[in-house]
Amino acid sequence: MSMVKADISMSLDGFIARPNDGVEHPLGEGGERLNQWVYGLKSFREQHGESGGSTGPDDQVLRESFEGVGAYVMGHGMFICGEGPWGDEPPFHAPVFVVTHHPREQLVKAGGTSFTFVTDAIESALAQAQKVAGEQDVRVAGGANIIQQLISAGQLYEPQIHVAPVLLGTGRKLFDDRDSKQIELEVTRVIESPGATHLKYRIGV
Amino acid sequence: MSMVKADISMSLDGFIARPNDGVEHPLGEGGERLNQWVYGLKSFREQHGESGGSTGPDDQVLRESFEGVGAYVMGHGMFICGEGPWGDEPPFHAPVFVVTHHPREQLVKAGGTSFTFVTDAIESALAQAQKVAGEQDVRVAGGANIIQQLISAGQLYEPQIHVAPVLLGTGRKLFDDRDSKQIELEVTRVIESPGATHLKYRIGV
Repeated sequence: MSMVKADISMSLDGFIARPNDGVEHPLGEGGERLNQWVYGLKSFREQHGESGGSTGPDDQVLRESFEGVGAYVMGHGMFICGEGPWGDEPPFHAPVFVVTHHPREQLVKAGGTSFTFVTDAIESALAQAQKVAGEQDVRVAGGANIIQQLISAGQLYEPQIHVAPVLLGTGRKLFDDRDSKQIELEVTRVIESPGATHLKYRIGV
Repeated sequence: MSMVKADISMSLDGFIARPNDGVEHPLGEGGERLNQWVYGLKSFREQHGESGGSTGPDDQVLRESFEGVGAYVMGHGMFICGEGPWGDEPPFHAPVFVVTHHPREQLVKAGGTSFTFVTDAIESALAQAQKVAGEQDVRVAGGANIIQQLISAGQLYEPQIHVAPVLLGTGRKLFDDRDSKQIELEVTRVIESPGATHLKYRIGV
């Protein structure tokens, strides 16, 4: 059975983007600080068709997040921001299911990436992704809204939060207030590096 | 020179208390989950005049937070909640400076704890605490508001956040939105345990 996993960078004060996130600044103005730990890594460069880059704990963590992925689920906002920069060969190399209110024909890109636009809610996108993924993982590419919905629905198995050592002060929170029951997690792995503390959890244990 | 340090437990979704925190429920209704990692520890029991308890990484982390403390700074809300339960011999064993709008005579308790009520803002409380502490640390006992004020003023040297593996959903956030500049941290130590991931930072590096 396919596992649903998510990886996301968050500031210590809980933000995954600075204000005015959009096409021009996918992580908001100044928000690229969150992913500073990522940009120079060998696995990041490989995923974008480039050579070189650094190795070490951060690289190991990022590499894992690309491995064994059978399909992705993504929010509309993230797709809109990424469509331009990702170009003709996006860095997913797997089918991507985009949860959106805007119907659109499937896009097939080079390198194994396709975008399928799902307009009948997250459950449908997840079901389609799981069907395609088979025994492989379904990765939630973001953003915060999709992750929150999956947690509330009890559908997210393994979130990994990359806590960047910065206080962004304002922007988009990973966790909005949600006046409902507490949800227990189990911390399954902690990897530290100067760029981020990588906290891997299982939910509902 | 005295260093200003703070220790606080926070849920992964950023809360340090559940709703309706007050005298009856200092951490809000259900919020005691945050400090679940603390209650059975040897150092916690010793601090409260009891014997027994467990040792290990959590105990080491908690024990450190009591050591080398020359004075405490505390918000009014925390004092109000604690005054009853702490009784005649509060677990501080050092002078405590309470930031409050309510003037009150100094309270001297058994075991070295005194409470001095400072009505002319956090800077004054901090200055008095540092004077008393000498070469020892000033510890910020909480709550969130005091910690935020000290961070914004560039006065907090070393925060340690104990991230409890739970999503509380709602309550009092450690970090409110603050529409100002980003603040860089350096992660100086990570200690993991099933009860909490202990993240120690230095600020403004």
